[in-house]
Amino acid sequence: MAFLNDNYLKLRAGYLFPEIARRVNAFCEGNPEAAKRIIRCGIGDVTEPLPGSVVAALHKAVDEMATRSSFRGYGPEQGYDFLRHAIAQNDYRDRGIEIADDEIFVSDGSKCDCGNILDILGHDNTIAVMDPVYPVYVDTNVMAGHTGEANEQGAYQGLVYLPCNAGNGFVGEIPKQKVDLVYLCFPNNPTGAVATRAQLEAWVEYALKNDAILLYDAAYEAYISEPGIPHSIFEIPGARDCAIEFRSFSKNGGFTGVRCAFTVVPKSLLARTKSGEKKPLHPLWNRRMSTKFNGVSYIVQRAAEALYSPEGKKEVAELIAHYMGNAQILREAAAGLDVYGGVNAPYIWVKTPDSLSSWEMFDRMLQEANIVITPGSGFGSAGEGYFRISAFNSRANAEEAGRRIKALIQG
Amino acid sequence: MAFLNDNYLKLRAGYLFPEIARRVNAFCEGNPEAAKRIIRCGIGDVTEPLPGSVVAALHKAVDEMATRSSFRGYGPEQGYDFLRHAIAQNDYRDRGIEIADDEIFVSDGSKCDCGNILDILGHDNTIAVMDPVYPVYVDTNVMAGHTGEANEQGAYQGLVYLPCNAGNGFVGEIPKQKVDLVYLCFPNNPTGAVATRAQLEAWVEYALKNDAILLYDAAYEAYISEPGIPHSIFEIPGARDCAIEFRSFSKNGGFTGVRCAFTVVPKSLLARTKSGEKKPLHPLWNRRMSTKFNGVSYIVQRAAEALYSPEGKKEVAELIAHYMGNAQILREAAAGLDVYGGVNAPYIWVKTPDSLSSWEMFDRMLQEANIVITPGSGFGSAGEGYFRISAFNSRANAEEAGRRIKALIQG
Repeated sequence: MAFLNDNYLKLRAGYLFPEIARRVNAFCEGNPEAAKRIIRCGIGDVTEPLPGSVVAALHKAVDEMATRSSFRGYGPEQGYDFLRHAIAQNDYRDRGIEIADDEIFVSDGSKCDCGNILDILGHDNTIAVMDPVYPVYVDTNVMAGHTGEANEQGAYQGLVYLPCNAGNGFVGEIPKQKVDLVYLCFPNNPTGAVATRAQLEAWVEYALKNDAILLYDAAYEAYISEPGIPHSIFEIPGARDCAIEFRSFSKNGGFTGVRCAFTVVPKSLLARTKSGEKKPLHPLWNRRMSTKFNGVSYIVQRAAEALYSPEGKKEVAELIAHYMGNAQILREAAAGLDVYGGVNAPYIWVKTPDSLSSWEMFDRMLQEANIVITPGSGFGSAGEGYFRISAFNSRANAEEAGRRIKALIQG
Repeated sequence: MAFLNDNYLKLRAGYLFPEIARRVNAFCEGNPEAAKRIIRCGIGDVTEPLPGSVVAALHKAVDEMATRSSFRGYGPEQGYDFLRHAIAQNDYRDRGIEIADDEIFVSDGSKCDCGNILDILGHDNTIAVMDPVYPVYVDTNVMAGHTGEANEQGAYQGLVYLPCNAGNGFVGEIPKQKVDLVYLCFPNNPTGAVATRAQLEAWVEYALKNDAILLYDAAYEAYISEPGIPHSIFEIPGARDCAIEFRSFSKNGGFTGVRCAFTVVPKSLLARTKSGEKKPLHPLWNRRMSTKFNGVSYIVQRAAEALYSPEGKKEVAELIAHYMGNAQILREAAAGLDVYGGVNAPYIWVKTPDSLSSWEMFDRMLQEANIVITPGSGFGSAGEGYFRISAFNSRANAEEAGRRIKALIQG
């Protein structure tokens, strides 16, 4: 009989967001009046419509597809040159970072890339993740057979967890032991923390010294407001030899429903074969994308390109300003508690009052304020005793949520 | 140092289509006048513009995304209900096949799904493929470590190859040995062959008897013109317990550049754990898609939905009639040779004259007729001595290609 992948059976059933949905649904069914007041500050999904430049580019590309002479069939699996160039030029070379067009691989999502990157890596790597952590990094390693079973706190045997807490500013410390792969996410989902240049320099130094690879998720880089905070790992000298970067149009252009992202694989990045030979990863990722992917919709790639036009850049800045305005309102509302994040990221990370557990706080916020937040413990055991407020909302909702949070805290 | 996936190094460098591109480019550079006459009948990419119903649906969905009240962010990873329902109803239930909406998983491409399906299967399966074969089935198994090295003919150690030839109507015979996974592709890419109901019944019987899983690629089902030929493996009783089906909008709606497809995983399909327990694969694929995928662009899903409208169905029928009209012209042009396919598929599979090898024929067609075809040997050693003509073209190009092929053969 055909074998299934047993590793999937190690995955803990209660993935965070389905469990949140279950509790919200149960509450709404029991409280139909309160259900109408619910404000969702849970999942990190954009709420504002697509920018005008994107809408215009989409319509134009659709019209091209409606005419034989301008119709496009299969595109390059790696992305169209026009988009790879716009990305490399605007996000990297214009900022003084040497990245070539063909080191950019356009995809339909950072979540996909973060998981798929394991395809080209071996099974014998020692892997480090932060705790709390974006669950996809962990779950995709479980699926690939890189872990043992989970313990009661949800930590998987075989992974190296780097605890993030108020003491270290929610930036996990460099491990004493040697690891091969490290997932870094700055601005961080879920904590909203950023790493300073000095901290990233230390990570690059560690990676170069230990021949480790940094898997750097910068999906929220557009939200960095403080000067001096690196937007890309490739701002750090040496990173071209030890890092892969994941970027997305989901949170800057509002593309969560449109689907476009990219991954940067420098040609100078090497990994080792089992026999110890060093080889570049770029051709492996190129082959992976050519064989298991067919490129992003032409229409969508034109939409992403529009984000780099002068009008598109202005519109992205306005979107970011909108969500960060929400973040400020929510930060101020929660000011009676220990509040982190929300300055360089659309997430606010808050210590629960009265030693409540994360899920207790979730239930209290749901029942008393009719606000959906995300329990910190859903991201790992070091997240216990925290909760995340997402700033992705309309201004009216953010203001009303702010009033209710304030009232609840002052209770 | 971080380990790479050594299995990638087993992949043969010369993937078929890049090698074709290399030879065509070299010819064009050396023959600038002839280069202007080139007609491409190689890759299976659609040439006609998107149907009007699709264009209208795309514009409408773009406008929805431009307005806050109708904007959509993250959608369900499995696809929107409106599309899953339209697929299950039109492609299955209306044809008397019991498939539930939630057995449909919408994706951005069949090529992706054919590769990704291995994520949920174990590494200890015995795997059978046809020869000639769509290269993605083989290459993704190589990448996953399910094979040894390739021999000189490009056949990988550890795979079971089922030769397809004129003697068996290009439908590989059921193996005598027990295998766990079988890739079937009907209408076939590259040979254009279809399997009869009796042949598919025999495959299902084999699979049920041996607890094997049929991975059934029906991307070209819309091209079936002869009555009685099954369009779906699920037309065969028992297939719900032994098959997964891959379908695509690439070749019916002309979506190669738009990107939308789907996979059907019946809830009754089981596989075994290492310890021998039988478990359904549906929750594993659901988990895979939830964790490593973020759903297809909302705009694109609305476009796919439009293909099921009365107008959309009419337009698809017209597109199919167009390409199949080309196929008939090309079949007739090649009639002096042994010609297969082209009746229920947009591919014509032709025996080379004068005992030419596939690549010799490729070069001759390129140099003497300025036509790009695909050498059969690129799909496996049993394809040696054949070539594939794609019917995806404008009518004018198909007619001109037909004249040149006729002249070349008679010449």
